Amino acid sequence: MHEYDILLFELFAIFVAAKVIGEIFERLKLPAVLGEILAGVLIGPYALGWIRPSDTLRAIAEIGAIFVLFHAGLEVSPKDLIKVGRTAILVAVAGIIVPFVLGFAYMHWRGNALTESVFVGVAMVATSVGITARVLGDLGVLSSRTAKIILGAAVFDDILGMLLLAVVDGLAQSGRVEWLRLGVLALEAILFALFMIFIGPQILSKLRPSLARLSTHNAPLIVALMVCLGLSFTAARIGMAAIIGAFFAGMIFSECSPEWDLRPRVYAITEFLGPFFFFSIGSQLDVKLFHGEMLAVAGIVSLLAILSKVVGCGLPLIHEGWKTVLRVGVGMMPRGEVALIVALVGLNSQIIAPSTYAIVVFMAALTTVLAPPLLRYLFRNAAKPIPAGAQGVS
Amino acid sequence: MHEYDILLFELFAIFVAAKVIGEIFERLKLPAVLGEILAGVLIGPYALGWIRPSDTLRAIAEIGAIFVLFHAGLEVSPKDLIKVGRTAILVAVAGIIVPFVLGFAYMHWRGNALTESVFVGVAMVATSVGITARVLGDLGVLSSRTAKIILGAAVFDDILGMLLLAVVDGLAQSGRVEWLRLGVLALEAILFALFMIFIGPQILSKLRPSLARLSTHNAPLIVALMVCLGLSFTAARIGMAAIIGAFFAGMIFSECSPEWDLRPRVYAITEFLGPFFFFSIGSQLDVKLFHGEMLAVAGIVSLLAILSKVVGCGLPLIHEGWKTVLRVGVGMMPRGEVALIVALVGLNSQIIAPSTYAIVVFMAALTTVLAPPLLRYLFRNAAKPIPAGAQGVS
Repeated sequence: MHEYDILLFELFAIFVAAKVIGEIFERLKLPAVLGEILAGVLIGPYALGWIRPSDTLRAIAEIGAIFVLFHAGLEVSPKDLIKVGRTAILVAVAGIIVPFVLGFAYMHWRGNALTESVFVGVAMVATSVGITARVLGDLGVLSSRTAKIILGAAVFDDILGMLLLAVVDGLAQSGRVEWLRLGVLALEAILFALFMIFIGPQILSKLRPSLARLSTHNAPLIVALMVCLGLSFTAARIGMAAIIGAFFAGMIFSECSPEWDLRPRVYAITEFLGPFFFFSIGSQLDVKLFHGEMLAVAGIVSLLAILSKVVGCGLPLIHEGWKTVLRVGVGMMPRGEVALIVALVGLNSQIIAPSTYAIVVFMAALTTVLAPPLLRYLFRNAAKPIPAGAQGVS
Repeated sequence: MHEYDILLFELFAIFVAAKVIGEIFERLKLPAVLGEILAGVLIGPYALGWIRPSDTLRAIAEIGAIFVLFHAGLEVSPKDLIKVGRTAILVAVAGIIVPFVLGFAYMHWRGNALTESVFVGVAMVATSVGITARVLGDLGVLSSRTAKIILGAAVFDDILGMLLLAVVDGLAQSGRVEWLRLGVLALEAILFALFMIFIGPQILSKLRPSLARLSTHNAPLIVALMVCLGLSFTAARIGMAAIIGAFFAGMIFSECSPEWDLRPRVYAITEFLGPFFFFSIGSQLDVKLFHGEMLAVAGIVSLLAILSKVVGCGLPLIHEGWKTVLRVGVGMMPRGEVALIVALVGLNSQIIAPSTYAIVVFMAALTTVLAPPLLRYLFRNAAKPIPAGAQGVS
């Protein structure tokens, strides 16, 4: 076969496998993204071995990750971030410190290296705001106060998690804990974030009239794609992860998104390229590593990941009663892309072992699988069910 | 820089260069696609040398080509093809024979090899229906009888051109003229086309109710992407070009496209990936080849390309008067993707020399650049100008 014929076959096989297993998962009321990851596990090199990702496939997966985060950014408005109350910030911060400390302490106590333990701690930090929002939307409780706390906190948590990811990415590049470098990176990340939250949207709104005068078809989409690629590259150049730039690019365009109809268009690109990213995540998971002690450790890490969010996020809300504590805690429980990306960065730079990578994937999978049924149970009285698919992130 | 940082920079630089020069071309009332090709010429390896396409970039360009043709297919309904009158077929067939014979004869008379001359002839055949439709839309004359003849003929011409491309692609693979193999290929291509025109859409309409029941978000888009990748791979496997499969995939979904809102979504993917394809076309054009005799030959080939379409397409319409002959002939004049792809297939398989490749690109560029102003002049009385951008292919 021609070189491109092989690539076409791989693209076809991966896309079909990811989407078919995703569809099966949707019918079982499980998140489709888990099905896409499972497709990677199944037909990837460690199980059936049908697809062994080439450099080109890995590059396409990286571009897919950029679009997953670009699309997520489109749902987060800078104004929401600035306006959101003290509660959400407290929930986010406590919900980051507790999982990090517990995850780090447990791994280090088990005898893992300092950097590896830091990676696991960071991977336990970031709530997947996409999954949370979609579950709350499906339950029809998006306008409740509890949901607003969860979403506000999840947004902060996502940004803090991303800054931590930048820190961790710097760690991966230098290979050891360079505190000065970490400080500089954190400062860079914070300045980058502040610029993107406060100044980026203003620059865009100044440029808006000129954008409307462009002759290019679909000019807003084209400019958004340029900014996405440009900020991804910039973020990567200053030592952060490229996807952080993509997330901020999405956030900058979040307020123009309805007017310019950006979301369905960017979502279409994400629908095409995203599965290759989730497949790639699964394809790097060696299922043979799960046995005996490994499974026990993965179970304990997952338990810590769940408890630490309930305790951490719940602590600032203890005066509002147990129901709110549990709802917010479980709402903040699912870990998604960020945890998997942290683990992947660690794996690729050989800071974390394949077994530790498998533990993080196990944790992300379990917290994501358990959240929807638990949330459904906790919101069983508040929920006003709406027709399936009528609302949601898409 | 990391490997992916370099790729991100290349993606960013190519996308910005293509779109900025495209925007300049739009303002000069020239087709944006020419600007995207020029970007490849300028910053590609033969002029400034800023970007030297890697294997990954070339693969992304190939996927871009698939989406350009998938999107074009979405605009062509199988029913339109079946219903269209004898006139359109005659115009298409005569408009294919005359350019092929003239192009082949001139190149062979100049002393070029048989296969190289066949490639140039084939490259002179296919009208770019996208450019034609967009110009007619901009002029506000899409509902005129002349426009309908042009569009109907352009559609047949496109399919016949694609079959010829399949023939030529087989030629490129075997390296010489194997007439038996060519016959089998032509038969395969025709059977594939007939299946896609008559049976494919019926299968899809039978499957439509099941598609509506799928739980996957955006299921119609996902299924369309699967079919696009699957037919592209299938077409490549049976010896045709992958993009032919993508075109038929688009055609099969053309009638469901409004209901499922497919076009803007597929267009978004094309907007992102297409520029890498057009850039790649330009990046393979060595501008230093254009001097003296070469320029004269390119000029003669371009002149033949223009005259042959006016004569060939006009011949069956001679009884309708010179105005119709000229309008239809000039409307069928722009050559686009197919000519460039034929040339690229020939170049990559070393059947046509870089100088011949340059001649074909020159011809495609000149016919595309000249068509819009000529059409505007020929339709100057019939035209009811509409606000720029209010209509068009996008």
